[in-house]
Amino acid sequence: MTARNLFLLPGDGIGPEAMGEVRKIIAYMNEAMNAGFVTDEGLVGGCAYDAHGAAISEADMQKALAADAVLFGAVGGPKWDSVPYEVRPEAGLLRLRKDLQLFANLRPAICYPALAAASSLKPELVEGLDILIIRELTGGVYFGEPKEIIDLGNGQKRGIDTQVYDTYEIERIAGVAFEMARTRQNRVCSMEKRNVMKSGVLWNQVVTETHKAKYSDVQLEHMLADAGGMQLVRQPKQFDVIVTDNLFGDMLSDVAAMLTGSLGMLPSASLGAPDGKTGKRKALYEPVHGSAPDIAGKGIANPIAMIASFAMCLRYSFNLVKEADDLEKAIANVLDKGIRTGDIMADGARQVGTVEMGDAILAEF
Amino acid sequence: MTARNLFLLPGDGIGPEAMGEVRKIIAYMNEAMNAGFVTDEGLVGGCAYDAHGAAISEADMQKALAADAVLFGAVGGPKWDSVPYEVRPEAGLLRLRKDLQLFANLRPAICYPALAAASSLKPELVEGLDILIIRELTGGVYFGEPKEIIDLGNGQKRGIDTQVYDTYEIERIAGVAFEMARTRQNRVCSMEKRNVMKSGVLWNQVVTETHKAKYSDVQLEHMLADAGGMQLVRQPKQFDVIVTDNLFGDMLSDVAAMLTGSLGMLPSASLGAPDGKTGKRKALYEPVHGSAPDIAGKGIANPIAMIASFAMCLRYSFNLVKEADDLEKAIANVLDKGIRTGDIMADGARQVGTVEMGDAILAEF
Ligand SMILES: CC(C)[C@H](C(=O)O)[C@@H](O)C(=O)O
Ligand SMILES: CC(C)[C@H](C(=O)O)[C@@H](O)C(=O)O
Repeated sequence: MTARNLFLLPGDGIGPEAMGEVRKIIAYMNEAMNAGFVTDEGLVGGCAYDAHGAAISEADMQKALAADAVLFGAVGGPKWDSVPYEVRPEAGLLRLRKDLQLFANLRPAICYPALAAASSLKPELVEGLDILIIRELTGGVYFGEPKEIIDLGNGQKRGIDTQVYDTYEIERIAGVAFEMARTRQNRVCSMEKRNVMKSGVLWNQVVTETHKAKYSDVQLEHMLADAGGMQLVRQPKQFDVIVTDNLFGDMLSDVAAMLTGSLGMLPSASLGAPDGKTGKRKALYEPVHGSAPDIAGKGIANPIAMIASFAMCLRYSFNLVKEADDLEKAIANVLDKGIRTGDIMADGARQVGTVEMGDAILAEF
Repeated sequence: MTARNLFLLPGDGIGPEAMGEVRKIIAYMNEAMNAGFVTDEGLVGGCAYDAHGAAISEADMQKALAADAVLFGAVGGPKWDSVPYEVRPEAGLLRLRKDLQLFANLRPAICYPALAAASSLKPELVEGLDILIIRELTGGVYFGEPKEIIDLGNGQKRGIDTQVYDTYEIERIAGVAFEMARTRQNRVCSMEKRNVMKSGVLWNQVVTETHKAKYSDVQLEHMLADAGGMQLVRQPKQFDVIVTDNLFGDMLSDVAAMLTGSLGMLPSASLGAPDGKTGKRKALYEPVHGSAPDIAGKGIANPIAMIASFAMCLRYSFNLVKEADDLEKAIANVLDKGIRTGDIMADGARQVGTVEMGDAILAEF
């Protein structure tokens, strides 16, 4: 069997602690299942800045490009709040997304039954919630040029960002959304602001045409992004797959994640296009939560989102579908048993730390 | 007493019905309080397109510019979904905002106690909620150039929108936020995406400097806009005044509005700068809800948001503070009595139509 190359970028804050629990699962899979994972590790974010003066070094970028999959923890923290814009911790993540061409960000917003009560929404609105948000990740206002601050003189400056989308970028992300929908409830809702943005007009057209040309079996709906935000709060279960641009995806997926009551538990996958020859796609897996500097290093962080991200890695990068299912089931079982980290603690549950949570999941796996 | 000139733009959908109830209040104030309102009326949105081929005619724009205040209903509907971009219904509203230079959009997100149960959030999270969102309304990606779709050939198009903010634009909207905060809980939270947008970096700097220079008595906090969306869902009562740009304001104010359970009830004010000589500011008042074409013409629309928008008009355009308070109290009293339109119906309440709701509020006024 050929080796399965994983590149680990634990990053800052609680990233390293969460990654530690994934490392245990990898070791177990190598030993018990002969999974053949080979891991290497690098620095990203604030810790990379401290070591190299950049949010990720060229050497680590090369390793990320060469790996079958990248596992990413989290970046940032108050320590680096005033480093120059170009080398801020987030720059490492943005460069990975751009250079690996990870245009498709999959963000499941699911509500673990054991956690429905933790949502700020009424439980009946979120019980059984299972939305997949597909966010375009390499275009839009995140990367468009010009992106600059100009000095106009007289104490006036001008901040400029540019939202740009080309037909092919919209087509390929729409394709991912329709393909995913076919494996689920077969419904896609596309969100933009076509009433004020020209990129939204084009987005709407291209999604509509892609649907007509290749995916007319899937149910397609269009919604303005502001109305979409409202509907997520009002009646989230109306959605199956949501497809939207980079910035709207950032906002909407965070709102959706918060709805579930499972924020500390949600994974994400960022995928590139399948290689023409090998069919392999570059990929990065990361928890939706951030670096949580306030609780970093205390051994209390919830490693579930990181572990669930590894489950997505098993599924999408290595086609280890059964293993992915098993790992996700292990997480659900541990929750059902009332084992909880502090962030998801509930009456009558048993509170554990990061390592104990990882052990419990491994025991169920 | 000089006349108080109001220009009414009922627009499409339920706009005209809702405006009808405000007209009754205006007539009453003229008669019983000698308020001296003089009203004129025009067309905006789809109905203006049908009449003139434009989303608002030049003649009506002149009237809007000359009036002391504009009362705006709602625009749009499926009938006009495929009219050309330049004359779509929303273009009328956007032109009014831009040409009247209504840079400050005030969107209160309050939870009427009688309606807390109607929120999708747990009642304890929204009871007593009172947030004021201050959205920049004449800049950002809504108006920046280039804004276009380019044909690249080979079946490829490129959609472009430009986010632009100058120092003075951020300064003046921050000023409004700090001034407003002083009349409330004295706290401002500024939201942007400085970690990915240069306009966000500038926004953050200018808000910070404005605070230091003139408003250091107000408590200031900065939050990333995606985290802000999360926090609105998680713990909305943590906020007093939120200040943010045009696009984030569009998204965040809709989410906030939905949280309250009072969406059909929320007003907004869009204000210009005070005139150097007269101190008067141009202003437009409009409900947060849209044109609701599905229920238009049936006499069942909730007129409260339109009436509450008129209360904001009394307060901000005419300094009729007591009258504004009384009108808002009349709305609350009617709700407390269990009188409801269909959209806010609850067990044991009495369901009424648009006209009856307007009459009930007038009777309490
Ligand atoms: C860290 C930041 C640059 C990033 C983004 O804005 O994309 C984050 O919010 C996310 O959603 O992954
Ligand atoms: C109608 C539309 C152009 C408008 C906007 O996007 O500003 C609306 O959503 C609003 O929030 O007032």
